[in-house]
Amino acid sequence: MAAKTLKIFCDAAFTGKANELLREGIAPHELIRARQASASILAEAAPDPALAEADIAYGQPEPSLVLASQDLRWLHLTSAGYTRYDTPEFRDGARKRGLVVTNSSGVFSESCAQQLFAYMLAQTRQLPESLRTQKEESPRRDRIRGNCQLLRNQKVVILGYGVIAARLIAMLAPFEMEIAALRRTPRSGEGVTMLTEETLASALGSADHVINILPASPETQHFVSAERIAQMKPGAAFYNIGRGGTVDQSALVSALSSGRLAAAWLDVTDPEPLPPDHPLRTLENCFITPHTGGGQENEFEANVRHFLDNLRRFLDGAPLVNRIF
Amino acid sequence: MAAKTLKIFCDAAFTGKANELLREGIAPHELIRARQASASILAEAAPDPALAEADIAYGQPEPSLVLASQDLRWLHLTSAGYTRYDTPEFRDGARKRGLVVTNSSGVFSESCAQQLFAYMLAQTRQLPESLRTQKEESPRRDRIRGNCQLLRNQKVVILGYGVIAARLIAMLAPFEMEIAALRRTPRSGEGVTMLTEETLASALGSADHVINILPASPETQHFVSAERIAQMKPGAAFYNIGRGGTVDQSALVSALSSGRLAAAWLDVTDPEPLPPDHPLRTLENCFITPHTGGGQENEFEANVRHFLDNLRRFLDGAPLVNRIF
Repeated sequence: MAAKTLKIFCDAAFTGKANELLREGIAPHELIRARQASASILAEAAPDPALAEADIAYGQPEPSLVLASQDLRWLHLTSAGYTRYDTPEFRDGARKRGLVVTNSSGVFSESCAQQLFAYMLAQTRQLPESLRTQKEESPRRDRIRGNCQLLRNQKVVILGYGVIAARLIAMLAPFEMEIAALRRTPRSGEGVTMLTEETLASALGSADHVINILPASPETQHFVSAERIAQMKPGAAFYNIGRGGTVDQSALVSALSSGRLAAAWLDVTDPEPLPPDHPLRTLENCFITPHTGGGQENEFEANVRHFLDNLRRFLDGAPLVNRIF
Repeated sequence: MAAKTLKIFCDAAFTGKANELLREGIAPHELIRARQASASILAEAAPDPALAEADIAYGQPEPSLVLASQDLRWLHLTSAGYTRYDTPEFRDGARKRGLVVTNSSGVFSESCAQQLFAYMLAQTRQLPESLRTQKEESPRRDRIRGNCQLLRNQKVVILGYGVIAARLIAMLAPFEMEIAALRRTPRSGEGVTMLTEETLASALGSADHVINILPASPETQHFVSAERIAQMKPGAAFYNIGRGGTVDQSALVSALSSGRLAAAWLDVTDPEPLPPDHPLRTLENCFITPHTGGGQENEFEANVRHFLDNLRRFLDGAPLVNRIF
């Protein structure tokens, strides 16, 4: 029985080895390149007739064109974020047409979880403060040493329980921490207590580490509000690897300036990058990395491999991973 | 049957809660305080008649006085390092008298392993380079992002396999790394390939992370020599949480200056602290923490608790933990 040759549309600007990997991995199915590669998940893509006849799309195609494409059965996004597609219109349209949507969170979950863990250990081992003493003649050794913490028995609250959180929790297993997490649709997870918005305040009040992995959406805008920051335990550390807009940055500046929060580690801000004179840039207890949480060597190849894994599942009729709609 | 009341000598300068914990934990046995607390593991202690009649000693008593103490059956050191006691004379004397010697490596192993793991993740996630961009207007985001690494499938060589290494290896389990270790007396260990001095060169040639936990001794002096550094894989990262004298620092400076090694993370140096103009202090890819690897909140209480756990074993006739002789 000869299977139908599928048309797979791709608008990602892959080059070199990633491109080769994609072409080889897709065969014998047909790779249709977009006329114009999508430059960014935030850019508007031009209409592309190639998309209209595709069975599968991989990249960042324009939501309205996705819905207008009659044969499309599966859309796989190159990003973990999917704010542009997360509208009632798109969700509804996709549901009516039986369109499955997956994202690349599996590609970024490992590196983002390692980034969060790097922040946590740098914080408990007082690395920034220690490294500041490198050029001093009399390092403030005793104070730093006494401020070091062990993770064991410390408490963690995670805002946004998805693949990154699940992976981080697996990494933290050898440290016997108390972990609680909030998710949009409460479900059970291994080694974690699930929170509701009602139980969140009390959990924030005792957490040593508050980790924000929330995606951007109208509901999550300034979710980490002045009120929620005020609920956090004095001396807690805050981490954000989700989206900058989920945090009330003015409230964060106040909590860091007053010392109420021990530190903030931010991979995302609003806007990004911050204006040159933004106070978060100069606060001694604020540590900003330039949105590198998803970074890894050969990132594009990892993205293609993740798509090809899912393509294998699609062809086998198996459930796809990282399904969002 | 009334057990004999033991005399437990202690010369550690504990105060407050740690002191209280010790007094309460030792009862009904007798705590004999030293006339003068030992200021440092490197200081010469004055003879103390109290030690001469003790059954157990806890602290850093002078080696010759330990051997001269007729009733002493067990010496528990407050430190992990035991260079001062690691002489043929002391080992021989202890063996002849049936004196058991234990150390506090269990107290420091958790924090030292977390410190090493903090270094490794800070290195692979490019934290120092990222944080340097915090005050820049145009962060070098793409280059940093591409330099980030995932631990998975990377190779680690550990010099000195003891309790710190064993704990670190347990922490690294979720990351599926290839781990090999060198120890004075090769023995098997879970999740690790044991190296000999013959197989070390080849292992160094492929390791992404070389971790030095060697103690100080005549045999380990400059063990990490110019020759061994030259055997390391270009771009490898080197970490030292053992003792500074185990490394040829001039050779390390050269390997860092030329970029042959990607980075060094040092908690110990020779001497400590380094002279103000020492090149390791200013190299952009050298990161020095001020001997804080053993640091933790309530460090003295943790030390006392570890001794009391071992005292329980001693009284029960069970094998002691962290036995060195």
